[in-house]
Amino acid sequence: MRIRILVTGGTFDKQYDELTGRLFFRDTHVQQMLARGRCRLDVAIETVMMVDSLELDDAGRERIVERCRSSTEHAIIVTHGTDTMVDTARAIAEANLSDRTVVLTGAMVPYAFGSSDGLFNLGSALSFAQVLAPGVYVAMNGQYFPWNKVRKNRASGIFEATE
Amino acid sequence: MRIRILVTGGTFDKQYDELTGRLFFRDTHVQQMLARGRCRLDVAIETVMMVDSLELDDAGRERIVERCRSSTEHAIIVTHGTDTMVDTARAIAEANLSDRTVVLTGAMVPYAFGSSDGLFNLGSALSFAQVLAPGVYVAMNGQYFPWNKVRKNRASGIFEATE
Amino acid sequence: MRIRILVTGGTFDKQYDELTGRLFFRDTHVQQMLARGRCRLDVAIETVMMVDSLELDDAGRERIVERCRSSTEHAIIVTHGTDTMVDTARAIAEANLSDRTVVLTGAMVPYAFGSSDGLFNLGSALSFAQVLAPGVYVAMNGQYFPWNKVRKNRASGIFEATE
Amino acid sequence: MRIRILVTGGTFDKQYDELTGRLFFRDTHVQQMLARGRCRLDVAIETVMMVDSLELDDAGRERIVERCRSSTEHAIIVTHGTDTMVDTARAIAEANLSDRTVVLTGAMVPYAFGSSDGLFNLGSALSFAQVLAPGVYVAMNGQYFPWNKVRKNRASGIFEATE
Repeated sequence: MRIRILVTGGTFDKQYDELTGRLFFRDTHVQQMLARGRCRLDVAIETVMMVDSLELDDAGRERIVERCRSSTEHAIIVTHGTDTMVDTARAIAEANLSDRTVVLTGAMVPYAFGSSDGLFNLGSALSFAQVLAPGVYVAMNGQYFPWNKVRKNRASGIFEATE
Repeated sequence: MRIRILVTGGTFDKQYDELTGRLFFRDTHVQQMLARGRCRLDVAIETVMMVDSLELDDAGRERIVERCRSSTEHAIIVTHGTDTMVDTARAIAEANLSDRTVVLTGAMVPYAFGSSDGLFNLGSALSFAQVLAPGVYVAMNGQYFPWNKVRKNRASGIFEATE
Repeated sequence: MRIRILVTGGTFDKQYDELTGRLFFRDTHVQQMLARGRCRLDVAIETVMMVDSLELDDAGRERIVERCRSSTEHAIIVTHGTDTMVDTARAIAEANLSDRTVVLTGAMVPYAFGSSDGLFNLGSALSFAQVLAPGVYVAMNGQYFPWNKVRKNRASGIFEATE
Repeated sequence: MRIRILVTGGTFDKQYDELTGRLFFRDTHVQQMLARGRCRLDVAIETVMMVDSLELDDAGRERIVERCRSSTEHAIIVTHGTDTMVDTARAIAEANLSDRTVVLTGAMVPYAFGSSDGLFNLGSALSFAQVLAPGVYVAMNGQYFPWNKVRKNRASGIFEATE
């Protein structure tokens, strides 16, 4: 079983530019995260874009959906900024890719900073992607949520089940 | 759904004694790992023992089995040294706890050291424990293995499927 | 010999706000840095302000000078953003505190991030402050510079000697 | 001014062997420490040996003295295990290298582990080496000690002034 990882940026992959003092994107950290996790899964990593999810518009979201649709792997991880992760999950769900298990995940703190939750979340998302039935899910905070049963609580930074 | 985490020690929880220069056990790091992962699962953490798994004998293994048997939670994580993780998995499986999903996990590098795989593995094990059917499993290297289909390759440090 | 550490903020002490995704100041990290360095010097830590040094104006600079002047310790460290560190060094020098050794230092990467130069710089600055003759110095990149013989190269992020 | 760094091993450079679970030496971490510190000093790094200082005998100590004697640089850092650092300092002092400033330093926790004091100590030692008068010194805990005025307190792990 091979898993496709679609990288879209988000806090996950932000790093610190020591000349400007700003956070920015360069390359994804997913490879080094998998190496640290001693991950032995067969994965294909594909960088779709490197953006802050607040800047992701419909066209960008459509590109992510398109990459899910054309993936030859049936288990797909999407690394994504947390702010609009649920919106992208919905866009993917509405594409009705009925034979795919798509798991979106991200981080509250950049992996490049010492105290990131990213490694925990990536381990979690990869595991859910192997065993959940086809569908679109968000994996954050050690939990998984169907795409239409979750929201991010902006005040606490936590993903919560709805209704 | 509540998950019980049974802590038994292993590399996961080793730390460096700066006065003697040796590795030793004090308290488990599981709480701080869950905090770093922003984990919101309902978990009960129970330290059964703090040992190097090479020093774990039948009596010790029986204590771990006993704690799995008496757990009121049906999803159980056992943090364990990697060297004899498969042996403990077998001991638990032979106890025929037919309604429990038990997932053993560990680390190749102590969590207290910067470069540990522990956070990845814990995220992975917690995820598998929520969705796998009752049974006993090892979760390492991003994968899960039924207890009787896995061995640790001592030369590479990697868990491999057996036929 | 007692050393006064005047904290003014700068990259040194920036941290990541996981709710907003922005860098901000809360408390200084100097205490935990000294603890990590197993520092046994007698130090008095005083937070003068917590600002990005690009936002430091003449009034703010005058407050720092004033804290140097009223310090009962003759060895003084000022932690400071790198962008205007040389300007503050000049302001302190122009106050003619002839019996004080004042060493300004900072970091290119926040201490809270894994890869910071802050701990190295703090060890360096504390050492120079113990042995340099009275005067005002910048300690960065493992070196010390008299206040009027140094500039920050903005393109490289490195402090260089001027003639 | 060029500084010679003589590497002899010690806790500074220990790392974790994930196959055996033991601490061991491979290459020195001094280069990457200098890179993290954005150090711009002109340094020559020379690995004399990679040993636990408890295993260092008179012959080994003589090799370190010999490397100090034949150094063309007059400022010398010796990275060294803390347990017998003072013994090696004495051996170097007894060689009467009257035009050299030799500073021994080390760490209580390996640099490869997250929480090491090594970076602080290296920044400190490099700074003292630039400004102290010729002589032999130990730089630990943010302080410097003449070779004959210091001992390691084994119970606390701290270097203390004697008499």
